[in-house]
Amino acid sequence: MRLSQYFMPILRDDPKEAEIVSHRLMLRAGMIRQEAAGNYSWLPTGFKVLKKIEQIVREEQDRAGALEVLMPTIQPAELWKKSGRYDAYGKEMLRIKDRHDRDMLFGPTNEEMITDIFRQGVQSYKDLPRNLYHIQWKFRDEVRPRFGVMRGREFLMKDAYSFDISREAGQHSYNKMFVSYLRTFARLGLKAVPMRAETGPIGGSDSHEFLILAETGESGVFFDGDLHGMDWEKSGVNYDDVAGIAAMVEGFTSRYAATDEKHDAAEFERRVPEAKRMTGRGIEVGHIFFFGTKYSEPMGCEVQGPDGKKLFVHSGSYGIGVSRLVGGIVEASHDDAGIIWPEAVAPFQMGLVNIKVGDAAVDVACSRIYEALQAKGVDVLYDDKEGGAGGKFAAMDLIGLPWQVIVGPRGLKEGIAEVKNRKTGARENVPLDQVVGRFGA
Amino acid sequence: MRLSQYFMPILRDDPKEAEIVSHRLMLRAGMIRQEAAGNYSWLPTGFKVLKKIEQIVREEQDRAGALEVLMPTIQPAELWKKSGRYDAYGKEMLRIKDRHDRDMLFGPTNEEMITDIFRQGVQSYKDLPRNLYHIQWKFRDEVRPRFGVMRGREFLMKDAYSFDISREAGQHSYNKMFVSYLRTFARLGLKAVPMRAETGPIGGSDSHEFLILAETGESGVFFDGDLHGMDWEKSGVNYDDVAGIAAMVEGFTSRYAATDEKHDAAEFERRVPEAKRMTGRGIEVGHIFFFGTKYSEPMGCEVQGPDGKKLFVHSGSYGIGVSRLVGGIVEASHDDAGIIWPEAVAPFQMGLVNIKVGDAAVDVACSRIYEALQAKGVDVLYDDKEGGAGGKFAAMDLIGLPWQVIVGPRGLKEGIAEVKNRKTGARENVPLDQVVGRFGA
Repeated sequence: MRLSQYFMPILRDDPKEAEIVSHRLMLRAGMIRQEAAGNYSWLPTGFKVLKKIEQIVREEQDRAGALEVLMPTIQPAELWKKSGRYDAYGKEMLRIKDRHDRDMLFGPTNEEMITDIFRQGVQSYKDLPRNLYHIQWKFRDEVRPRFGVMRGREFLMKDAYSFDISREAGQHSYNKMFVSYLRTFARLGLKAVPMRAETGPIGGSDSHEFLILAETGESGVFFDGDLHGMDWEKSGVNYDDVAGIAAMVEGFTSRYAATDEKHDAAEFERRVPEAKRMTGRGIEVGHIFFFGTKYSEPMGCEVQGPDGKKLFVHSGSYGIGVSRLVGGIVEASHDDAGIIWPEAVAPFQMGLVNIKVGDAAVDVACSRIYEALQAKGVDVLYDDKEGGAGGKFAAMDLIGLPWQVIVGPRGLKEGIAEVKNRKTGARENVPLDQVVGRFGA
Repeated sequence: MRLSQYFMPILRDDPKEAEIVSHRLMLRAGMIRQEAAGNYSWLPTGFKVLKKIEQIVREEQDRAGALEVLMPTIQPAELWKKSGRYDAYGKEMLRIKDRHDRDMLFGPTNEEMITDIFRQGVQSYKDLPRNLYHIQWKFRDEVRPRFGVMRGREFLMKDAYSFDISREAGQHSYNKMFVSYLRTFARLGLKAVPMRAETGPIGGSDSHEFLILAETGESGVFFDGDLHGMDWEKSGVNYDDVAGIAAMVEGFTSRYAATDEKHDAAEFERRVPEAKRMTGRGIEVGHIFFFGTKYSEPMGCEVQGPDGKKLFVHSGSYGIGVSRLVGGIVEASHDDAGIIWPEAVAPFQMGLVNIKVGDAAVDVACSRIYEALQAKGVDVLYDDKEGGAGGKFAAMDLIGLPWQVIVGPRGLKEGIAEVKNRKTGARENVPLDQVVGRFGA
């Protein structure tokens, strides 16, 4: 993409309303734009990051056997009256009347609707287990939305719902999601720590939240350093191996991990050797719940068991804050100059900077590199706009692409371009004819 | 995907509420489920088709130089008060009050918001032309929603918005979208005819709608058969060739094409030789508008021109009904037995039917074929559930995958499977070891 044909409205000054670094950097980099309190438009680079995260989340859900559907944003109120949550949900639920004065709402979550969908489609234990998920915009009318996409009112969430014939089978479904979350966050370039959590208004018997580590995180976290030992991204996982998956989960849940709200210093010291005691700050990006028959009973969600008797299904729900993750990754990965995108979610793989637009030799050299990279399938942002080198460098650092290739008249005379790694800051002079070879598709 | 692990709740009987064939077949095939009047959940196969259509629409927008963004579903009312459309839009607009009693709305379209986004990001004529689009759920509170996803209240639409420095430049942007629409519909396996249209409530000076041909279409159409001569899918298009693109558009707009509302029989006979007079029925799936400065003036959307003076930008908007297209394709492509998906949008490339589940030899043969196809990257639905052959054949025909591979004990003894083309009904006996080779990734 040529910057001269792109839409990336960079702000020179820090926006006043931004209290946290991800909000500030995302606004400054032209990734998002506020339309109303807690309501954002995603501009081209922001949209690309959002879609890359969404796709990784989707692939790991599919790999774990979950089936993707899409429920509408607007729901009829009746469903929620049936489950008893219509009144319980309070003012965070955006209530709407349609032109015929029927009570509707903008879905804040989907336990009721998915249970209803499942109930109409499945009658027998033979059709279990099932896990249905969707990635859809939700609305929660926060009193005081803030922190940009970290706590918006309209936000993109992946929510999955499992249905099983028994407590034990349901536990396996829960464990599969647990492991798939570890893989998902690892693929996003994040270090995530699962912690036992309160079940809160969703209810149920078991719950874990997943926090990613970021210096600016909302919660303090204390955990056993062994939790970071395994390479979840590369390791193969067999989701049909009930005992193996349970052992993986046990490997995590048996080790100490707590947010500051639940932290017990004495227990931490007793259970974790000093060298392995890790502390830091974290941001919640995922939350999973096992709630058994809490929704299936009031909603009459039964299947026929092997003996012909009806049984209530055992369920769990599993959320990942997809739009929140965009902000979370920026919180976890930035420096004073701007964002540092992990390769897997960067809006472009690299930036090509022409530091003297209008100099014929530099223009030609840049165009050649740009076209060769494009032909190779490398997604490159080419800064071909007029402007000073200083401003261009600052903008490239701000938007945080993993690599920069800088071409100017001085280097050109020696036949070289400068290749810079955004994360390490390392710079290297590379012969022009070797630049393209450095970047894979 | 094994059917025994899938979620495709097929209905045995015709649903009473379905007045048209696409609504009936999509409900029966378990693609969608109604949640409220005009509000649908997309079940796994429906979701897959929707996503495939969305992706083709996206690719052709990108190819024509449009940049993807995503605006929120909920908009503040102020924007619409500024343009004067808040009161004008009437009861179709879903109006909402948030917890602080602020007026919000569920966006029925996005001219106001995108103009505001553009205005903040672009100041100079040098940054033009720009075309920004998004693919987002819209809500229009129809009095009597019906016809399934063909006329829902919550629907997925691609809407693009072009911004240019002059009338002439704006015309080129309009022409590019015109041509990209022809390519888009061709890739979807559809015959689309563009027709001059009323600008209606969007306003402006020029407008065309695109109708796809379907026997059950809502409008009668009359057109010159030459309009179907060109292979839009395969032909290369250079969108920078202003004259060439204009000539392509002229090739269409100069030929007779009209819906029954505007049809002039005398003119039709005068302009079109008898052998080329085509009549049929059509469904509107796209609509493009050139409205010049209609929104830029009231919203103060100006850029600095080459002489330093401010100029109002010239704009157009370009819609494709993405969710409507799912129904439109079913209307255009079905028979008495069910849906016939074009290859490009089919939920699976093929169906593998085991007609005697439990017969060890058949099970083994099917598993081998299934695994080999999967390894090859062929997206296959394997019916591995118990049940009679008749019901299995009927379900496969109903869901309309382009190819069926049928394996049973009798054929197996001779070492053959039956390969059936859903569209032509042609059946062929194929040696078992050649089945996999028949299907490409």
